[in-house]
Amino acid sequence: MEFSSKLLENAIYEVSQLPGIGKRTALRLVLHLLKRPYEQTADLSKALLRLKEEVKFCKNCHNISDTDICEICANPKRDRTLVCVVEDIRDVMAIEHTGQYKGLYHVLGGKISPMEGIGPQDLTIASLISKAKQGEIKELIFALSSTMEGDTTNFYIYKQLEGLEIETSTIARGISVGDELEFADEVTLGRSIVNRIPFEGSLKAN
Amino acid sequence: MEFSSKLLENAIYEVSQLPGIGKRTALRLVLHLLKRPYEQTADLSKALLRLKEEVKFCKNCHNISDTDICEICANPKRDRTLVCVVEDIRDVMAIEHTGQYKGLYHVLGGKISPMEGIGPQDLTIASLISKAKQGEIKELIFALSSTMEGDTTNFYIYKQLEGLEIETSTIARGISVGDELEFADEVTLGRSIVNRIPFEGSLKAN
Repeated sequence: MEFSSKLLENAIYEVSQLPGIGKRTALRLVLHLLKRPYEQTADLSKALLRLKEEVKFCKNCHNISDTDICEICANPKRDRTLVCVVEDIRDVMAIEHTGQYKGLYHVLGGKISPMEGIGPQDLTIASLISKAKQGEIKELIFALSSTMEGDTTNFYIYKQLEGLEIETSTIARGISVGDELEFADEVTLGRSIVNRIPFEGSLKAN
Repeated sequence: MEFSSKLLENAIYEVSQLPGIGKRTALRLVLHLLKRPYEQTADLSKALLRLKEEVKFCKNCHNISDTDICEICANPKRDRTLVCVVEDIRDVMAIEHTGQYKGLYHVLGGKISPMEGIGPQDLTIASLISKAKQGEIKELIFALSSTMEGDTTNFYIYKQLEGLEIETSTIARGISVGDELEFADEVTLGRSIVNRIPFEGSLKAN
């Protein structure tokens, strides 16, 4: 696209660097900001820069937090022997939203992905292992997405835990509650049959 | 949604003020920026603020421009007797892209819309009328979208031009080139029959 102004072109270029935003959407967003008062653009810039400059991560679970230890880790009512390993803050929010989990979290900050150049040292795996070695944790729940990268990461952590007395589990994969069997994909349906649970156990969850 | 950090919540709020971006998308964009180097956020903020602070509008056609008079208006090869009235820079870009138009533009900056509180004084209509009174313009082409607001704006300008010797026209509405008649909406098909053109004339355009 040819723009009539270098300033405009530059703003559109920067906005279109965001994931899922192309040149056309970027143009629409930039024109919107141009029509609005200066304060809106200033507030947006300030909020993003402040976040970037002042963001803190919980020293225990590595979740985004305003304090050194996040609210979940600081809560004495949470079960400190149970730790759920997740990819990022969105997963923490999703699990917290269910109201079914009372343990702590460990936020990895990504998955091992040779394709994207992300190795174990780019994640918070070392910190997880050193926590595990302190002996307080009894069970680790792997709740990464079930992709090649997720499975690799789970396995890498599992191997590092060898020799420690820690139980490991993964969240159950199966047919969504309310879904019709005929529309489920084969892998999910297959897993849900192989990993079937006792009927009495299924009554407990509700 | 409940966030574990006020800084994060604030950044997400500001991003979600943009049109078409909800809280979930805002969270995704903000987490992306958090993972990237500080420079990317700084460049984005700087580009948006600079645009807002330094943006200029062409004194003749009100298009976004880096100079007082935009490239199109300054081009001596353009036909200065022909002016196409459009809503914003996106329409200028679309028409320029066809390579079929050699006149100038006049960018209104919006459409008259009582629902959104946009009146004639919020647009560059007065400037268009004063240009028209100088006598250089022979034809005005209305190229606003054919909505209630677009038609109102066209009519408002048309009434203001009374007594001046200026031809007015609107761009043709009809079936898109290559489209099947059976899938066209009734209003467009109806207009394309009422406003049919001589067959010889249609050959000329290609």
